Amino acid sequence: MPNPSSLEVEFQPVGKRVSLPPGATLLDAARQAGIDLTCACGGEGNCGQCRVMLLSGPASDPDVDEKFYLTAAELEKGFRLACRATPLGDVRVHLPKESLITGQRLQVESNLRSLPPDPLIRAFPLTLEPPTLHDTRSDLSCLLDGLAQQHGLPGLTAGTAVIRALSPALRAAGWRISTFVRNGEIIAVLPRDPANGFAARPLGLALDLGTTKIAAMLVDLESGETLAAAGAPNPQISYGEDVISRLNFAYRHPGGSLQMAELVRQAIRDLLGELLQQTGGQPEQVADACIVGNTAMIHLLLGFPTRQLAAAPYVSAASQPLDLPGRELGLWMAPGARVHIPPSIGGFIGSDHVAMVLASDLDQSDLVSLGLDIGTNTEISLRLPGQPELTALSCASGPAFEGAHIQDGMRAASGAIEKVRQTSAGFEYTTIDDELAVGLCGSGILDALAELYRGDWLTQNGRLRREQPGVRVGGNGLEFLLAQAGRTGSGRDIVITQHDVNEIQLAKGAIQAGLNILLESASVSPERVQEVVVAGAFGSFLNIQSAIEIGLFPRLPNARYRQVGNAAALGAKWILISRSARARAIQIAADTRYLELTTYPRFNRQFALAMLFPEK
Amino acid sequence: MPNPSSLEVEFQPVGKRVSLPPGATLLDAARQAGIDLTCACGGEGNCGQCRVMLLSGPASDPDVDEKFYLTAAELEKGFRLACRATPLGDVRVHLPKESLITGQRLQVESNLRSLPPDPLIRAFPLTLEPPTLHDTRSDLSCLLDGLAQQHGLPGLTAGTAVIRALSPALRAAGWRISTFVRNGEIIAVLPRDPANGFAARPLGLALDLGTTKIAAMLVDLESGETLAAAGAPNPQISYGEDVISRLNFAYRHPGGSLQMAELVRQAIRDLLGELLQQTGGQPEQVADACIVGNTAMIHLLLGFPTRQLAAAPYVSAASQPLDLPGRELGLWMAPGARVHIPPSIGGFIGSDHVAMVLASDLDQSDLVSLGLDIGTNTEISLRLPGQPELTALSCASGPAFEGAHIQDGMRAASGAIEKVRQTSAGFEYTTIDDELAVGLCGSGILDALAELYRGDWLTQNGRLRREQPGVRVGGNGLEFLLAQAGRTGSGRDIVITQHDVNEIQLAKGAIQAGLNILLESASVSPERVQEVVVAGAFGSFLNIQSAIEIGLFPRLPNARYRQVGNAAALGAKWILISRSARARAIQIAADTRYLELTTYPRFNRQFALAMLFPEK
Repeated sequence: MPNPSSLEVEFQPVGKRVSLPPGATLLDAARQAGIDLTCACGGEGNCGQCRVMLLSGPASDPDVDEKFYLTAAELEKGFRLACRATPLGDVRVHLPKESLITGQRLQVESNLRSLPPDPLIRAFPLTLEPPTLHDTRSDLSCLLDGLAQQHGLPGLTAGTAVIRALSPALRAAGWRISTFVRNGEIIAVLPRDPANGFAARPLGLALDLGTTKIAAMLVDLESGETLAAAGAPNPQISYGEDVISRLNFAYRHPGGSLQMAELVRQAIRDLLGELLQQTGGQPEQVADACIVGNTAMIHLLLGFPTRQLAAAPYVSAASQPLDLPGRELGLWMAPGARVHIPPSIGGFIGSDHVAMVLASDLDQSDLVSLGLDIGTNTEISLRLPGQPELTALSCASGPAFEGAHIQDGMRAASGAIEKVRQTSAGFEYTTIDDELAVGLCGSGILDALAELYRGDWLTQNGRLRREQPGVRVGGNGLEFLLAQAGRTGSGRDIVITQHDVNEIQLAKGAIQAGLNILLESASVSPERVQEVVVAGAFGSFLNIQSAIEIGLFPRLPNARYRQVGNAAALGAKWILISRSARARAIQIAADTRYLELTTYPRFNRQFALAMLFPEK
Repeated sequence: MPNPSSLEVEFQPVGKRVSLPPGATLLDAARQAGIDLTCACGGEGNCGQCRVMLLSGPASDPDVDEKFYLTAAELEKGFRLACRATPLGDVRVHLPKESLITGQRLQVESNLRSLPPDPLIRAFPLTLEPPTLHDTRSDLSCLLDGLAQQHGLPGLTAGTAVIRALSPALRAAGWRISTFVRNGEIIAVLPRDPANGFAARPLGLALDLGTTKIAAMLVDLESGETLAAAGAPNPQISYGEDVISRLNFAYRHPGGSLQMAELVRQAIRDLLGELLQQTGGQPEQVADACIVGNTAMIHLLLGFPTRQLAAAPYVSAASQPLDLPGRELGLWMAPGARVHIPPSIGGFIGSDHVAMVLASDLDQSDLVSLGLDIGTNTEISLRLPGQPELTALSCASGPAFEGAHIQDGMRAASGAIEKVRQTSAGFEYTTIDDELAVGLCGSGILDALAELYRGDWLTQNGRLRREQPGVRVGGNGLEFLLAQAGRTGSGRDIVITQHDVNEIQLAKGAIQAGLNILLESASVSPERVQEVVVAGAFGSFLNIQSAIEIGLFPRLPNARYRQVGNAAALGAKWILISRSARARAIQIAADTRYLELTTYPRFNRQFALAMLFPEK
């Protein structure tokens, strides 16, 4: 007889076991086991991504959502949606590779220019005399007098965290120290002659906190050199791939806000630890950090209230630049170190977009320029030379380009189809890491649709033509067979369904409408755009020609497009190493006019038109 | 057979039971039970104060310290020193009243002048418009714009703790709020029209953190009115009555610093809670706090390193004024509230002395003035009109005037003999609360010695005369019988031993030598002193004439002495309610020259001379 108070779930091939109370789902079990199952909808049965296979043991009957996302044959084999299936006893579960978010391609680097360093934090070497009964100044007085006399820095201050570390540090260092100073405030005192001379140099953490991915760099603040880079998935993803699911979770569950914050703070701590290990740096050297992210991610990181951000009129708690003590995020840094969060612009246009505009020099461009960051929310800025203001808007493009809501969609991980071309031999594709295909990532879906439209598999309205080869009736209506089960890593056919096409139409329609409205509001015709900066992971890997062919991007010469990689992370680095870049970021946010799309008069019409594919 | 892994100790009359591991002492058991046993030496067997009676059960044999402090008859009855006695099985223990530190007389008030309020924190009423899709400014932007437009306050900032509370607060208050602002920083947003209109007023906590006692006041920052006052023993006392024992504990035990800090922070939290309960105030209204204390107490409160303060040359980690977030001390206050710690002067002369100088206006006096704070360490300042600098020194007077190291000494609690007079009927005394006498507090000991010296029971060297009535040979040499067992609350004789006299000679000698050296270093003869401000608990209750007669104070007309009560707590209040007082406190510390006694050339000779009683 099963124990009624606790059931055991064993996950394979990872071999993890967890106990859970009756009534909990397999998704709950996976979360408890620390397994990152893909789950765009946050566990609502709406995305069909958290597909697992029940190997043994009793479970609830498949519900209506499972019957929608899984074929009869799959259900027969034991496939289930983890968020819907409730074990009724001890069970063993197989995790298919395509349901896991590990191994995802992370982009940290950018191909933009580098910047001469002029950091906010500076290090000053100092040799002090130890106190005697004739000189009983406090340790801090002794340090302040030394900085005033030896470096002409009068009137500095120090906070309690620095004072707590000061007295033992001075004695351990034999009164030969390096002092890190930020804006008139002492933030750390380190031994000047450590075994490793490197230890007296101030380091900085630049971090792009994305909805799905976190990209981090450790920077030498004096040289401006990037010492190491690392990335990790955003662990909040198991509470929903889209930001609204996460914001809702944060305010609807008691302690939800803290829970979401702690998840991502732990990931940042781990990344910083990894970067320090790579470089041999000490936590006390980390004298500064800059974290950029969209408004929702920053709210969830800082534990800011989210209720007012999750529903119209979508206002953030604060859009101002913030400097908070590193320890407030549980980061082990120099005792007085602060984390700088650049300002945001409005709506969901956050500091990541500000950092992207900064690093791509969009605010100083002499060209009519557009800057795009394509994601679940897509932010677009327009620069008109000679005008003091940029204009920016955000469109809810949804996660389709990240593989969500697409039957065989997945993120850009090993085995994802990333390029598709129609040749005389038929549809050909390449996958990430040249693995057997297990699904389609954003650039693959984009290519596939462009080829299907070009080859007349799709009408201008986006209907699949029943009569074309490869088009068939599947479990959920018409679908195009891209890869047969025998050739795939999952042993299942990889298809593009009519529903997938419509999802991409919605996504590209939102972005295209946003672009059109942004240009229209400034009375700029598309052909006048001289430069289009495309940032972010999907933006870096997509095929510009495919994007133009389905109407996502305006039909401009390829040379006007610049795919710049992770410009947001680079902007965060610039802010760390340059005081003028930090000031420029604040200016960019102040000088950018936010355009609220939903109040734009012709928004609905523009959106409807943009859903169509362009005239050929 | 007793259980070897855990013994049970039952304390009476309180009826508390605790389990403790074998080898632990009765003092450990009392600490675990949360019972505050007096224990001046920190549990080293050196003070003889932690006297308890073993009612039943096996324990270690009395050791050499217990045989010194307890008579054979007392040992026979089961009296033990809690710090020495180790239970060997389950035991029951009686706690005599005089061994407990509860019920102690606490002094919060002062008789000095009041000050017109001009607080750092100000409250601004505000009515804001809720956001719409046409006005999607962040909540903080909306607040900042409102303060700029309605109150002419541009460029304010807010920290993360304030932002975290802001969005729900604005909505709960219906956008009608009161905003507390400090130095250009928003520190709280409260509803403007609460059921209790009082809730929108900013309050402040003024606190004097003494070595033995904590005195606290809740202040209305706008009116300057003291709304409530409360006091509590400093719970660190169970780790030693003198500061050095506590400093040693903090750095010698792993986690000791945090343990000591948490003890006193909890006491402060409790006091603040009590004050709010008394007044009906809300924690979010507490917009400011000022904590004063000697250097050691402030180090232990803030978790600062103590090793360098516990040994020569006794340097503090920092002597600068500090402003730390209230939450760093775990205080529930307004989200952006800070705790102000005024600067210290040097050695053990801390912010409490600065606050005392401030509240007694010593820095602005037109008279040649002395300011004294008598305690375990005694701080003395000298003011010479027309000179920009005060001079201050600290003398290690020891805890004898607080009843420690005195055979029947106790603190100023119920039943303590506080006044002694010799009349034709013999020695008469009064006790605190008119209870049966259980011991002598500082003012009682002082009186007794003055009377004994005046009546020739004592020689000028401080020897008890064997031939005088009431003088007898006790367990530890000569002693004077002040109260017979039959008349006392403890059922024991209350005596003044030769050793007690010598302890008081050491204490008064230290203070007298300090006074003499301070005057000598400034070339001021004692009779030129026009005013002597005597602050603190012992200083407020002592008899000036007695102090003069044993030579503790210079022989000046009584009218030149001012016993001002708790001037340190009043100074803390002034700093809360007046920006100019806060600035003056910083100026006082900067303008006070610290005189290190141990490096003064004739210190030893002065000290030896000062041990004598004066010529009659």
